Amino acid sequence: MTDTKKLLEQVKTGELSVDEALLQLKTKPFEDIGIAKVDLHRNIRQGAAEVIYGEGKTSEQICEITKALREGGCDKVLITRIDDAKAEALKTAEGHVFRYYEAARLGVIGDFPEPDGKGKILVVTGGTSDIPIAEEAAVTARFHGNEVECLYDVGVAGIHRLLSYTEQIMEATVIVAVAGMEGALASVLGGLTDKPVIAVPTSVGYGTAFGGLTALLSMLNSCASGVSVVNIDNGFGAGYLAGMINHI
Amino acid sequence: MTDTKKLLEQVKTGELSVDEALLQLKTKPFEDIGIAKVDLHRNIRQGAAEVIYGEGKTSEQICEITKALREGGCDKVLITRIDDAKAEALKTAEGHVFRYYEAARLGVIGDFPEPDGKGKILVVTGGTSDIPIAEEAAVTARFHGNEVECLYDVGVAGIHRLLSYTEQIMEATVIVAVAGMEGALASVLGGLTDKPVIAVPTSVGYGTAFGGLTALLSMLNSCASGVSVVNIDNGFGAGYLAGMINHI
Amino acid sequence: MTDTKKLLEQVKTGELSVDEALLQLKTKPFEDIGIAKVDLHRNIRQGAAEVIYGEGKTSEQICEITKALREGGCDKVLITRIDDAKAEALKTAEGHVFRYYEAARLGVIGDFPEPDGKGKILVVTGGTSDIPIAEEAAVTARFHGNEVECLYDVGVAGIHRLLSYTEQIMEATVIVAVAGMEGALASVLGGLTDKPVIAVPTSVGYGTAFGGLTALLSMLNSCASGVSVVNIDNGFGAGYLAGMINHI
Amino acid sequence: MTDTKKLLEQVKTGELSVDEALLQLKTKPFEDIGIAKVDLHRNIRQGAAEVIYGEGKTSEQICEITKALREGGCDKVLITRIDDAKAEALKTAEGHVFRYYEAARLGVIGDFPEPDGKGKILVVTGGTSDIPIAEEAAVTARFHGNEVECLYDVGVAGIHRLLSYTEQIMEATVIVAVAGMEGALASVLGGLTDKPVIAVPTSVGYGTAFGGLTALLSMLNSCASGVSVVNIDNGFGAGYLAGMINHI
Amino acid sequence: MTDTKKLLEQVKTGELSVDEALLQLKTKPFEDIGIAKVDLHRNIRQGAAEVIYGEGKTSEQICEITKALREGGCDKVLITRIDDAKAEALKTAEGHVFRYYEAARLGVIGDFPEPDGKGKILVVTGGTSDIPIAEEAAVTARFHGNEVECLYDVGVAGIHRLLSYTEQIMEATVIVAVAGMEGALASVLGGLTDKPVIAVPTSVGYGTAFGGLTALLSMLNSCASGVSVVNIDNGFGAGYLAGMINHI
Amino acid sequence: MTDTKKLLEQVKTGELSVDEALLQLKTKPFEDIGIAKVDLHRNIRQGAAEVIYGEGKTSEQICEITKALREGGCDKVLITRIDDAKAEALKTAEGHVFRYYEAARLGVIGDFPEPDGKGKILVVTGGTSDIPIAEEAAVTARFHGNEVECLYDVGVAGIHRLLSYTEQIMEATVIVAVAGMEGALASVLGGLTDKPVIAVPTSVGYGTAFGGLTALLSMLNSCASGVSVVNIDNGFGAGYLAGMINHI
Amino acid sequence: MTDTKKLLEQVKTGELSVDEALLQLKTKPFEDIGIAKVDLHRNIRQGAAEVIYGEGKTSEQICEITKALREGGCDKVLITRIDDAKAEALKTAEGHVFRYYEAARLGVIGDFPEPDGKGKILVVTGGTSDIPIAEEAAVTARFHGNEVECLYDVGVAGIHRLLSYTEQIMEATVIVAVAGMEGALASVLGGLTDKPVIAVPTSVGYGTAFGGLTALLSMLNSCASGVSVVNIDNGFGAGYLAGMINHI
Amino acid sequence: MTDTKKLLEQVKTGELSVDEALLQLKTKPFEDIGIAKVDLHRNIRQGAAEVIYGEGKTSEQICEITKALREGGCDKVLITRIDDAKAEALKTAEGHVFRYYEAARLGVIGDFPEPDGKGKILVVTGGTSDIPIAEEAAVTARFHGNEVECLYDVGVAGIHRLLSYTEQIMEATVIVAVAGMEGALASVLGGLTDKPVIAVPTSVGYGTAFGGLTALLSMLNSCASGVSVVNIDNGFGAGYLAGMINHI
Repeated sequence: MTDTKKLLEQVKTGELSVDEALLQLKTKPFEDIGIAKVDLHRNIRQGAAEVIYGEGKTSEQICEITKALREGGCDKVLITRIDDAKAEALKTAEGHVFRYYEAARLGVIGDFPEPDGKGKILVVTGGTSDIPIAEEAAVTARFHGNEVECLYDVGVAGIHRLLSYTEQIMEATVIVAVAGMEGALASVLGGLTDKPVIAVPTSVGYGTAFGGLTALLSMLNSCASGVSVVNIDNGFGAGYLAGMINHI
Repeated sequence: MTDTKKLLEQVKTGELSVDEALLQLKTKPFEDIGIAKVDLHRNIRQGAAEVIYGEGKTSEQICEITKALREGGCDKVLITRIDDAKAEALKTAEGHVFRYYEAARLGVIGDFPEPDGKGKILVVTGGTSDIPIAEEAAVTARFHGNEVECLYDVGVAGIHRLLSYTEQIMEATVIVAVAGMEGALASVLGGLTDKPVIAVPTSVGYGTAFGGLTALLSMLNSCASGVSVVNIDNGFGAGYLAGMINHI
Repeated sequence: MTDTKKLLEQVKTGELSVDEALLQLKTKPFEDIGIAKVDLHRNIRQGAAEVIYGEGKTSEQICEITKALREGGCDKVLITRIDDAKAEALKTAEGHVFRYYEAARLGVIGDFPEPDGKGKILVVTGGTSDIPIAEEAAVTARFHGNEVECLYDVGVAGIHRLLSYTEQIMEATVIVAVAGMEGALASVLGGLTDKPVIAVPTSVGYGTAFGGLTALLSMLNSCASGVSVVNIDNGFGAGYLAGMINHI
Repeated sequence: MTDTKKLLEQVKTGELSVDEALLQLKTKPFEDIGIAKVDLHRNIRQGAAEVIYGEGKTSEQICEITKALREGGCDKVLITRIDDAKAEALKTAEGHVFRYYEAARLGVIGDFPEPDGKGKILVVTGGTSDIPIAEEAAVTARFHGNEVECLYDVGVAGIHRLLSYTEQIMEATVIVAVAGMEGALASVLGGLTDKPVIAVPTSVGYGTAFGGLTALLSMLNSCASGVSVVNIDNGFGAGYLAGMINHI
Repeated sequence: MTDTKKLLEQVKTGELSVDEALLQLKTKPFEDIGIAKVDLHRNIRQGAAEVIYGEGKTSEQICEITKALREGGCDKVLITRIDDAKAEALKTAEGHVFRYYEAARLGVIGDFPEPDGKGKILVVTGGTSDIPIAEEAAVTARFHGNEVECLYDVGVAGIHRLLSYTEQIMEATVIVAVAGMEGALASVLGGLTDKPVIAVPTSVGYGTAFGGLTALLSMLNSCASGVSVVNIDNGFGAGYLAGMINHI
Repeated sequence: MTDTKKLLEQVKTGELSVDEALLQLKTKPFEDIGIAKVDLHRNIRQGAAEVIYGEGKTSEQICEITKALREGGCDKVLITRIDDAKAEALKTAEGHVFRYYEAARLGVIGDFPEPDGKGKILVVTGGTSDIPIAEEAAVTARFHGNEVECLYDVGVAGIHRLLSYTEQIMEATVIVAVAGMEGALASVLGGLTDKPVIAVPTSVGYGTAFGGLTALLSMLNSCASGVSVVNIDNGFGAGYLAGMINHI
Repeated sequence: MTDTKKLLEQVKTGELSVDEALLQLKTKPFEDIGIAKVDLHRNIRQGAAEVIYGEGKTSEQICEITKALREGGCDKVLITRIDDAKAEALKTAEGHVFRYYEAARLGVIGDFPEPDGKGKILVVTGGTSDIPIAEEAAVTARFHGNEVECLYDVGVAGIHRLLSYTEQIMEATVIVAVAGMEGALASVLGGLTDKPVIAVPTSVGYGTAFGGLTALLSMLNSCASGVSVVNIDNGFGAGYLAGMINHI
Repeated sequence: MTDTKKLLEQVKTGELSVDEALLQLKTKPFEDIGIAKVDLHRNIRQGAAEVIYGEGKTSEQICEITKALREGGCDKVLITRIDDAKAEALKTAEGHVFRYYEAARLGVIGDFPEPDGKGKILVVTGGTSDIPIAEEAAVTARFHGNEVECLYDVGVAGIHRLLSYTEQIMEATVIVAVAGMEGALASVLGGLTDKPVIAVPTSVGYGTAFGGLTALLSMLNSCASGVSVVNIDNGFGAGYLAGMINHI
């Protein structure tokens, strides 16, 4: 039964007055703390623990939001795209335990849940320089209850390196392909597997790599079927989506 | 056991001579018909019936390839991005039954299989003009054994139209969001569901719609998690991927 | 009182059953005719007669939608971006009177209302080639009950032509500045008036005019305050917005 | 009566000699201080207090210009896009009282006037990171005599947050929609109200957000009518224009 | 003595009434024929015969404007960017003699004047395909009273071809360099002469020539001093400017 | 001994007068036929038969140039980027034998020479639609005396197809990699061979393939060493360069 | 008589041996100092004192080059795009007197010559922030013997400021129009004068000003004739070209 | 005989067990050190010593990889795109001798081999600022056993400088053309020689040089045949490829 219908039924039976119902419709799903409308129900609505996009927010703002979340009953929070200073501020804030994944620029409040997804997520990178984004994807997926395996520096210029991991590739439920430069990794992986490939272009490269744009365009035009793409350097998004697919 | 290992075992036991094994490694997975290397084993390797990308191929080339496929034992073929003339040529070619989906610019040889996926795929469009691309996604998904539901013209400018279908949105296993112009549909859908949203930017719009580029960029920057993107007007890719996810 | 509150009250008092209320929330604001969800309440919700974006819709689809609108009680319809063939189809469709504005590529069902806005809208063009877009803006504004004056071919290369109309410029409530090429008209107008200037870049020009992109960028960077911009060749949008401002 | 006509009459009646008139035409409307032609009459010509664009000007230049303005009788000045160093210089300059809005990077000389506009301006942001640009819009509007209300962090990914403020949205005379990333906020707001929406794309985001370009393009292609756009991060321009519309 | 001053003197002496003077200021410099404000005084103000930009104007509009010009006393008119149909219409229009330069897409009413410039203008092209744009420049310059010499197909890939014309290059007063593809001609010419080089990028080329954009960028970044650039394919602009410089 | 030195020696010994020498320096290397400076010595200077870029030249111009070449003693001519009409005109022109390669849009006057290069050139395509550009490369290379082998439709999405031709790849002296869409073929080939790979991006693809730009960018950013790139669809350039390398 | 001819004559008469002549052809026009080929004859060949592009060269390299120039007899040198550190190094280098124009980032060795051009060059800016680029143009022009007048902060948003300087504008021989943002200044100036306008787009602005690209595009599409454009922020190029035109 | 075939033979003869063979196929060609799959066989497969792309890798990662290489028997390593800090770390790492080429940002472990290529590679730059990229190419080529000659600052603006080196240009086996700004050097060199020209666009320039994009586009559109292009500032790639060609 949808929420709206349930509410209407409660109004009819008198369980809720009209004004109370109206109030509930308007105010319950989030907490207004001025600088943010903190979403307390997303874990119900979206089946996920809460995530804060850390870039562009001050340390103070992030701490305020995590506090509101905690007070709202949410004890698992992932904070993305933070730097050392913000991590330090979160570490010293009271009331929670905090781990900082420096390479991935991620902060985590609360423990990782037991993996309960369908299978394994495989995170693959073209080169060594793509590892930070891959880590962002891997930590995000683990945070949302997935088993994750990583395979780094197997770019297509030495195709034999990639081919020697065919078994792992075949066994994964979802693959996250992280690559900069010409981003060809996604196409080759897409041709080797019959599972979804989530391609993450990275800003690794120079000149006409255009900060990841070339990898992005390359991935969007993959001649392999089953490949979809997220924003440049969006390791979080790929890890989140991979986890979602792994839990269908 | 991997194919390579099995082959090596057969070589050892004498079942295969070295040259035969080498030959097999090299020649079996496809048929070389000059203009194309027709892939006869992809349905084994990728778990999918065969697909031909029709654009840039002549009617003759397409017919040659379908013939080679049929002779190779493949009786279900999807041909994408064809026009009326190519459809006509395929219709009159001997040896197969052919259906043409004009709006979707798709041709199908063979019947649709019984849906055997996990749930339902929901294909949603922002406007009426996005329907052809949505149909491409829907037919592709049905061709690969999925149940598909369509919801057209529910763009965000009249958000109440979209919200009145909340139930369908909640129930889908995967959502394909097809929209041109500013492409905001993907973000709103992404916020309403906890299932993967595959966003298809369309070339609907004018001026700074830039043939779908604006919708693409908008979708890549979706503030909702769980959204990934395929190429502009790539209804096929979205339908294929949705089916893949629905069969994990 | 908001609509939601009113509905809830009716549920409480028993005027509406829960299911009826739910139905109303979901189905009333539009008519689902398959290819489109026809919005019958926008004139209540947005204070405007109904508008159909004609590009990318077939003649049949447009006629179906206008018919649904007419049956829903809406007797004034504006159809944008149509060509001669679609205009012909609409002309011969039964049940309505239809006028076609060829230059502006607009079709109108129903009469223009009496102007009831605050003042006059002035539509200005840089050159003769910009007139079709200007006409689109002017007809749209008249359709929504505004008095409109037009001033064509007063581009900044001969600044004396523009300056000789200072009085009309000063007297307008809102100005729509339509220009291609370098689009400087918007800046000069913005400096001469203290009323809002809605800038419409046009695709007039060649080479690095880039189909209106240069005019668009120029207008977005206007050194005059009070200038805002709509999409390239979006005469409709400018006329609609000008009318909105003129009716505040 | 226009200024030119009045002058010509004075010449005829002998009140002014030809040379005096010529001089007046040429020199009166501004003060030439070398580095700038300080406009002393804009508040007559444009109905606004004076504004200085602070970026690219040195502290010395800004102080020189404000001094010239003050000596020309202008006691309300808004200085945009300044940093802490320039704010400090302005604070310690003699002869005026100065307030600095750090987040908005604005400096104000003189008090805000009593609001005398038609209604309320509503400034809405998609996220917390958009607040500085929103504040620039809000302070600018207040500086020009408008009542302003702010609604922050109600982006479309959690559409329920936005919908719970429907009443405020409906009541505003003009809405300023401030958003980065995919900028879908403007479209959804445009669909909910029948008042003008001024969209401000912000540079919030990363990768293909392209420093606000994606939000800009998205807003220009809004499928909702009544939306116009200003330059990326141009909170000032939006606040100024909103005030202009609120005073028609 | 400036026009404004003369007018003011006439008002003072009573030669003109105030209203007459005002009228003159406003209406004399052009003729308003609805679709255009035809400029009758530009040949006084700008020292040039009149030019009509033919693209985007209908045959009827062009004929109306030339008629208004002729009635206003202007007997030399250049019409740019016309096609065969418009040329035919102009040819058959009464009251003037008309020549059509098909390759250059130019029409001319009236005879070329005797050349009275300082020296010779040299128009150079990189290849054969650039000739139409070069002809547009050459005819335009001749129309404005200049002696013009042409040197075609001397692109830099065979530098010896260009170097064998060093004398002509040295003797020219102004050089118009017309080239597509990589546009290197302008740089090499700029290094060989101490006279201004006006570079005209053409849309000759394919792929990453991007319709002339590459040539344009190349010319803007010329390592030779003395090179300036006009719009892609703007032979008219280059010929006009060359003539202007040749008459200083 | 350089040409310049030889000439100077001849002047010294009296074999040539000063004016004759000057004349020779200036006029000999090409024939001026007005629309073109026909290069008669390039086959000496560049070691190649003559090539005419056919696009943007009329049939008449091409015939005039081939006639001048033939009269200048050049009996092998390659004409690129022609269409059926131009081919027809060349076929019927007197004095030469002409073959037309329709798919490659190439015309050839004269026979192919015996291959005298070092080894074999291998031309590889990603798909069937890339064949025309590959043919342009192959014919060009054969025209310049090279042995050429072709391998079509071995794109990276089915990497096994490509890998089964490892021997041919290993044996080639130079490889021309022709691919559209994401252009990953060049990288994979570059990783498999230690010979130069000339990458030709093609305009095959749609949407964000951007007419070959994506393939171009991808190839420029190849993570494999030994890959260089030519313009989009520039099969001629690749074939020419491959032949050059094969003849070092 | 050309240089080549003179040399050949000297060879014939025995004044020069063949080898000496060859040597002269090769080595005289410049001095090879390893890091640079210092051009000692450009002031003969191009009629200008020598200019060094300072960006991307180290202080040491610049000093080496100026020393080579001085030793080659060149006593007037302009060094562009230097910073304080390089200026300091040049100041303390022995053997020359050096002045540094900080705002313009220019260094000058030697005195300005007496102006000997035809008339006055007028340098105009849209705003205060454009002054550094304008100063670069002005100093460059003075360095090459021109009289220069400057008119700053007369952008088109307050068109009356610009119009009050009509006399100066009319009297100039060449105008340099320096503007960022929307760059409309060039068009308005182009419409007011019959002399060449050299437009210099500046990187002043933000967001979609795109570092001067918008101003550049706007200037290239000027609806006024007689406008040509140089690279963004290229004050030097504009000043140099203006001086060239002023000396024809 | 291919590696796969040899392996299969060994399996047949019993020299290798199936599992050993499988292991070899999978693990031998590289060493997995976690952060990288270190390629130990590339010098066999690609005929080159090993190269590490230094950008985006930490000093620690680079040292780990060089250690693995050394232990794998590779005693010649080139590390590209490193800075002073990484160079310092490599210098102090034990077990190898290390030289740092600061301008070229290259580090070299091991001695240069004796040149054994066919002829000489000529590296040419347009200006002094292009030297670092040219040095990267030169050192790379020498590292791979080539004789290299350099010719700096011979850009096309003073074409006589370039022409005086015609002999060197004619004698080279391969030419590397390094230029920024408008990149015309490649075209002129391509026209002077009949050997391959590898064009390297550099990021030298400002404004519309767009960090090397203009030079790149210019080089891709070279009207001279025999020119191919590598990524912006990719001196390494050009030097590597030049060496490859020089060793065919």
